[in-house]
Parts: sequence; C-alpha cells; structure tokens
Amino acid sequence: MAIKVYGSMISTATLRVLVCLAEKDLHFELIYVDLASGEQKKPHILSTNPFGQIPVFEDGDVKLMESRAIMQYIARTYVNKGTDLISNDLKKAAEQSMWMEVESQKFEPATTRLVWELCMKRLLFGEKEDEAVVNELEKKLGCLLDVYEARMTESKYLGGDSFSMADLYHVPVIKFLMGTKTKKLFDARPHVSAWVADILSRPSCLKAFCGCPY
Amino acid sequence: MAIKVYGSMISTATLRVLVCLAEKDLHFELIYVDLASGEQKKPHILSTNPFGQIPVFEDGDVKLMESRAIMQYIARTYVNKGTDLISNDLKKAAEQSMWMEVESQKFEPATTRLVWELCMKRLLFGEKEDEAVVNELEKKLGCLLDVYEARMTESKYLGGDSFSMADLYHVPVIKFLMGTKTKKLFDARPHVSAWVADILSRPSCLKAFCGCPY
Repeated sequence: MAIKVYGSMISTATLRVLVCLAEKDLHFELIYVDLASGEQKKPHILSTNPFGQIPVFEDGDVKLMESRAIMQYIARTYVNKGTDLISNDLKKAAEQSMWMEVESQKFEPATTRLVWELCMKRLLFGEKEDEAVVNELEKKLGCLLDVYEARMTESKYLGGDSFSMADLYHVPVIKFLMGTKTKKLFDARPHVSAWVADILSRPSCLKAFCGCPY
Repeated sequence: MAIKVYGSMISTATLRVLVCLAEKDLHFELIYVDLASGEQKKPHILSTNPFGQIPVFEDGDVKLMESRAIMQYIARTYVNKGTDLISNDLKKAAEQSMWMEVESQKFEPATTRLVWELCMKRLLFGEKEDEAVVNELEKKLGCLLDVYEARMTESKYLGGDSFSMADLYHVPVIKFLMGTKTKKLFDARPHVSAWVADILSRPSCLKAFCGCPY
C-alpha cells in the first residue's frame, strides 16, 4: 500500500517529511490540504491529528501526526532504503539525537515566527513583516548560530561526520529563510554557510521542494 | 564508571532525567549546579552544553546535553534494565514517539512559562505571578488537555496501553503544577486526572523528587 502524506507545500512540517521520504528513496502520494479554507480542521485530518494540523501520514494501517515522529518512523522502518539517517551505534545515535533536540527545542522556536513574518504573511495576506519583531528574533537566531558555527568547526554535520536526521530536521526552515533578509545570519558564519550550501544542494531537497513557492 | 548528572532539583529538565534513571533502576551521582550563581555558564558545563544549560549527563566517555536526548540514550542503552520505556515494535514505538513530540512541541511551550510564573518567580525572587499571563497560558493548556482527555478515553497512557517515555516526559512539569492553582485544569478532566495520579505515584517519581521543593 502506498505511503500517503496529507499536507501542503507551504508547510515546513510537511516539507520536512517530504525531504525525509526523498532521502529514503520512497514513493508516496501527496494529498493537498487547503490551509486557506481550514481543511486541516476537517474530520479526515482530525481523525489522525486531533490538533487539526498537517502533515498527516499513512503507511498501511500506521497513521501518524507530528513531522519529527513521522520522520523517525520512516528512518527506523525503512532502515535499508536510501540514506542512513539514524545510526545503529548507540553513541553516534545519541549525538544525533542531541542535535535533533537542539533543533526541536531551540532552532524551531527561534525561527517559526521568522518564517511567519518574512514568508507567510506576504504570501498568504500580502502583508509586510513587523520589523521590530524580526530584529528581536534575528538577535536570538544569531546567538544560536554562533553555537552551530562552533559545532561545525569540530564536525562537518551537526550530528557528526555524516549527514543525519539532525541536519534533515533543519532543511525546510533554512530553505525558506534563504529567500529572506535573515539569510545574512547564515552567510556571516563560514562553517554554517558551507553546511547550508551542502544540505540544500542534496537531491532530496531539490526533489522535495519542486513545486514549492520557496 | 558511574553515571553522572550535573543538575539542580529546581530544574524540570534535570528531574526529567532523574525520573528516567529511577525507572531504569540505574545508580548515578547527582552533582549540584548552582543556577543562582550562574554556574551553568562555567567551563565544566559549557564543554558539554555550549548553551550553558542543565542537565549535563556523563556515562563513561558519553557526554550529553538535552534532557530528552539523554532519556532516549538511557532507554536504548539500558534496554534490559527496569521499565521498558520505548517499544521494540516499530508501530508501538511510532505511537509513543508521536506523543513524545506532542509533549515537546505543545505541552512544553504551553507550560514552561506557567512553571516560571507560578513556581520559580516566588521560589527564586519572592515575586508574585503575572495574573494576565497565567490566565492566557491556562486557556492554551486547557485546550491541549482536552485533546489529552480524549486520547485517554482510548488508551490508559499517552503512548498506548502501558507507561512509556511519552508519559515520563510529562512528569516533572505536572508534579510542579500540582502545587499551583493550575492543578484545577488537570482535576477537571477525569481521564487526565486519573493519569496524573497514576504517573505521579510511581516509585520513580517519589524517588526522583525526594529533596525537591515541589
């Protein structure tokens, strides 16, 4: 039975799952959910995601919400397909897991509102960003990227010497921000900048973002 | 070599790791970090956690930050000790993972500031909470707990029929909030209330919170 993803190309959470499926070289059906009309609050989404959010994922009788949980399921279930995203070595897996949590607890909170201000407000409502809010958020993101810069003087990727789930978690938000003035924060840090160029040029990213407005 | 946890009994993140170690029946050394004097910004913490936060975890040459990554390392490394916290069955593990992500993405953001307003401000600075902020946050938490209530009409625990990492992630914050007026939100929902009574009465919780002001 085909994998199904209910989502939208303007949802970073949906794109996170699509990049993961591309890394694992898995076929899937993308079923468009119209956020503008509130389709995510309809029963076919709510039955799997009671919060009324996308993406929703189906793989046979496995039905999941939460993009990061979906990606972990994909990585562990299709372990012999495509890129190895979570190491079998417990110590290496712990290092990857640590930076997956940094994305979840620090990078996501620092960037969600930036993506909203700099991408979504214009795209969905034709509105300009709130400059004071953007400046404040950019300060926080700059501090976070200083830690990333130091990390990547030690290892090529966040989770260690090879590309892993820790890097993958970051792809959609960074791809969106590369089209905004926040790009300067990434460009100003040479190791971060090289890492961004690396992860965004992967075939998985090019494939998943085909058809995306960013 | 003994497991070492650098942390504090007023840190929910530290307590999250301590409850996990208790569930796995593991011995450890707790090394007190004095948050009031900013000890978490000193080199012995920064060398493992460049964000200058606790807990920091050591198990031989494995050194980790981020409480949830630490707990996953513990569960996967000491799989044959104590409580089984992450299922070996991929489908069951995915269900647990989904609710672990709900805690991380929804419960934590809804409650961090509540714990600050209702517990930490008084404890650390003798200050009263900001009532308007608390009321706003309680509204959000109430909506979230409605979903939890519906979930627990279907299964005894968040991650399925048995206690798992998904429940464990919630323990310290709920323990703290039980001593505040926010307790009423949990009490008002019968399945949530029974779940709270269940997870807070586990020996692991009683053991980990011994010496905690909450």
